[in-house]
Amino acid sequence: MNAFNSLQHSVAATLASAVPESILLTDPDALIRYSNDVSGIRHGRPLLVARPRSTEELSNLMACCHRHGIPAVPQGGLTGLVGGAVASRPEGEIVVSLERMDRIRSVNVIDYAMVVEAGCVLDSAKAAADAAGCLLPIALGSQGSCRIGGNVATNAGGFNVLRYGMTRDLVLGLEVVLADGRVWNGLRTLRKDNRGYDLKQLFIGSEGTLGIVTAAALKLFPRPEQVETAFLAVDSIEAAMQLYARARRQCSDLLSAFELILRPGLEVALRSRADLRDPLQEAHPVYILAEVSATGRIDLRGLMEGFLLDSGDILRDGVIASNRAQADRLWLLREVMVDRQGRGGPYLRSDVSVPISRIAGFVSDALAALARSHPDATPITYGHVGDGNLHLNVIPPEGMAPEAIPAMIHAAEEVLFDILDRHGGSISAEHGIGLVKQAAYLHRVDATTLDLSRRIKDAFDPCHLLSEGRIFNGHAK
Amino acid sequence: MNAFNSLQHSVAATLASAVPESILLTDPDALIRYSNDVSGIRHGRPLLVARPRSTEELSNLMACCHRHGIPAVPQGGLTGLVGGAVASRPEGEIVVSLERMDRIRSVNVIDYAMVVEAGCVLDSAKAAADAAGCLLPIALGSQGSCRIGGNVATNAGGFNVLRYGMTRDLVLGLEVVLADGRVWNGLRTLRKDNRGYDLKQLFIGSEGTLGIVTAAALKLFPRPEQVETAFLAVDSIEAAMQLYARARRQCSDLLSAFELILRPGLEVALRSRADLRDPLQEAHPVYILAEVSATGRIDLRGLMEGFLLDSGDILRDGVIASNRAQADRLWLLREVMVDRQGRGGPYLRSDVSVPISRIAGFVSDALAALARSHPDATPITYGHVGDGNLHLNVIPPEGMAPEAIPAMIHAAEEVLFDILDRHGGSISAEHGIGLVKQAAYLHRVDATTLDLSRRIKDAFDPCHLLSEGRIFNGHAK
Repeated sequence: MNAFNSLQHSVAATLASAVPESILLTDPDALIRYSNDVSGIRHGRPLLVARPRSTEELSNLMACCHRHGIPAVPQGGLTGLVGGAVASRPEGEIVVSLERMDRIRSVNVIDYAMVVEAGCVLDSAKAAADAAGCLLPIALGSQGSCRIGGNVATNAGGFNVLRYGMTRDLVLGLEVVLADGRVWNGLRTLRKDNRGYDLKQLFIGSEGTLGIVTAAALKLFPRPEQVETAFLAVDSIEAAMQLYARARRQCSDLLSAFELILRPGLEVALRSRADLRDPLQEAHPVYILAEVSATGRIDLRGLMEGFLLDSGDILRDGVIASNRAQADRLWLLREVMVDRQGRGGPYLRSDVSVPISRIAGFVSDALAALARSHPDATPITYGHVGDGNLHLNVIPPEGMAPEAIPAMIHAAEEVLFDILDRHGGSISAEHGIGLVKQAAYLHRVDATTLDLSRRIKDAFDPCHLLSEGRIFNGHAK
Repeated sequence: MNAFNSLQHSVAATLASAVPESILLTDPDALIRYSNDVSGIRHGRPLLVARPRSTEELSNLMACCHRHGIPAVPQGGLTGLVGGAVASRPEGEIVVSLERMDRIRSVNVIDYAMVVEAGCVLDSAKAAADAAGCLLPIALGSQGSCRIGGNVATNAGGFNVLRYGMTRDLVLGLEVVLADGRVWNGLRTLRKDNRGYDLKQLFIGSEGTLGIVTAAALKLFPRPEQVETAFLAVDSIEAAMQLYARARRQCSDLLSAFELILRPGLEVALRSRADLRDPLQEAHPVYILAEVSATGRIDLRGLMEGFLLDSGDILRDGVIASNRAQADRLWLLREVMVDRQGRGGPYLRSDVSVPISRIAGFVSDALAALARSHPDATPITYGHVGDGNLHLNVIPPEGMAPEAIPAMIHAAEEVLFDILDRHGGSISAEHGIGLVKQAAYLHRVDATTLDLSRRIKDAFDPCHLLSEGRIFNGHAK
């Protein structure tokens, strides 16, 4: 029996004193599935995976971990990009998968609120809202597999943030198991509640380091009955920004998406699938995928057409989807681009944000710098204009030796982040810090922020057992 | 020289070593203006009032307070209702007034963001946004005197929360002076930023107990070019709730206010001013003041008319304002009602919230209980339906002996809160806890919430010098 097996055996025996043994997975083959997120980086393997079926079971598990000093990392749908939810500590760590806690506890149409357990897949939660005539507006590429707990823990963004906000803006209440096993019950559907500190805000976006979200009360909206989708071409990012300014003003808060795609991104999509065609006659440097949506009594088609007619001075070409199937085809272009941009291999996936007014300057500076530093690489640029959020990715040259790629990715990221710093941007708009972005985060964070963050970590997880070492190393002072 | 004067003298001398003496007010007459908020309760008097002119001056002041153990309470426009921003500690406390830090640092139309100092009066900030064609949607009865720092520190609500959210939802970034004088710089206008813990969330709504907000970056919206306002009558609160459900669905997120007023409230307004008339022919038990707003290309009048036509089965009567002046007259009824409900004397001002689906049941149960316990008192009920937020106030019988009124108010509050507990409500939807609601808060708060809150207080203000004793007593464990 090697050291890993011996430790695993001892931890499993300890935990089995507090929870049914049947919720603990120790078989090496079974553990593989819980070992890797979408970052593609192999961080480590869990000592074991616990799969509690209820808040009470999780509470017992964590109380036991706390008594015996067993480190744990909560895990959702494994769609993260920063290594935040996989085991990585050299001293050994258990994974707590929320996948079995996947119930929809309630949907209330009058309150426009639903209560969902952390392990519920986002698409299932959205379907339950939809069945009640409501919209749960969190919309992500990974919605078929990501889970609500992970959405909350990472403050997930996505396509509709412009209209409906980040996950944080949609959380009315939370139920959380703390590092010591206590249950914090903040599961309310009140819209206004100014009683003392709003503790739920701390758990949202804290990447599992302060507590394990077990259920969330989420804001719903009336489900739009009409959606108008347009694919538009302009000459430059500056023109795209002008178009955005007009859209915001003319579409009266009904704008639900305004996605920027530079030509190289569209080409990725068109090259990857023979059934996809350029929606426009000619090639253009910059595209916008825009969507407005509304319920009821609004001439939404007229709104979109009027806005586009008024923008004839900026637009070079464009098409409005005439039905849902056509709109889906337009969105498919973006989806295929995202999936296929890396040709199946590693590449620099960035997720940065700048003030909206800096988007054009930032992209122009960044592309110029990358053209100098990495002339053979291919930058793919797209993003959510209304959120100032850009995915400016860099694909290694075809045929580059695999062993050279990690260094190239790192060097390209340094170039990009250097430009970003000059534009007052964030190195992580949506994806969080986890392990992957930690060095870049710690390089930039100010001492006061880090000190306050460490004090919070100490207050909530004094033994540093929960997702320790993600975002920052809590122990170092 | 009495003990107060002697302590005042010594504290002033200490502070004058760190900041210009000219920013310290010690004259007893000058201090009066900084001693009382709108709660009408006399809590105490400040040792002195410091009026820093810059973040740096405030930082020096607080560092000095921290070195010498001088308790301080930050103060904005003194429009609070819970005694959170006035001196009250028996051992003596200085007031830090932000009134001189009132600059608008920037308004950026492309970013839809403005940066405003804490002492800026809300109306001034709104006017600056308006001048740039934007809307700062915080809208409160006290907006002519409340200040941005107080709005942030109390997570202010108001009329437009339904559409635009609480102050929390509008804060993009903060600059804060900590209890030890360090400046935390989180003053960003990024829309998405998932780098580590979102520390600003802790300061929002913490009523000055964790840090002193010196400036805020706030989200703006396109200024609506059209507003439609209607005053509607229905038979019951149940009918009002049905109407709300339809309005949300039919008005497509353009609904910006949906205010409930029961008949006794309207009567207060009509009795108080001879120039005000009932907008409708006959009396009805329940009224709704509804508003939709939009920019640009939407037939907003048609939207409102269509919705009302469709609700003929619920509506008993109603009028749509045909111009801004008429709309202002409708809003004036609500304003006069709020101002005059207490006939200038003390009364129970409540500020509770329940899930939207519980509004009708809660109001009905509460009014029935109050009719039993206080048959001679007059309940005035109004509120923000879309937020589940009710102001169910109780006016003492005319002619009640002044010395009997405080006990009556307290007893009526107990009756109300007892019903509220049964409906899963909050005793403070908008106003916070401060001192006035502390007993009711501590009676209801669970041990885990209180423990975590105290740990946060300890982490941010280890010497317990900042607004100590508001919300909860930080020292008691």
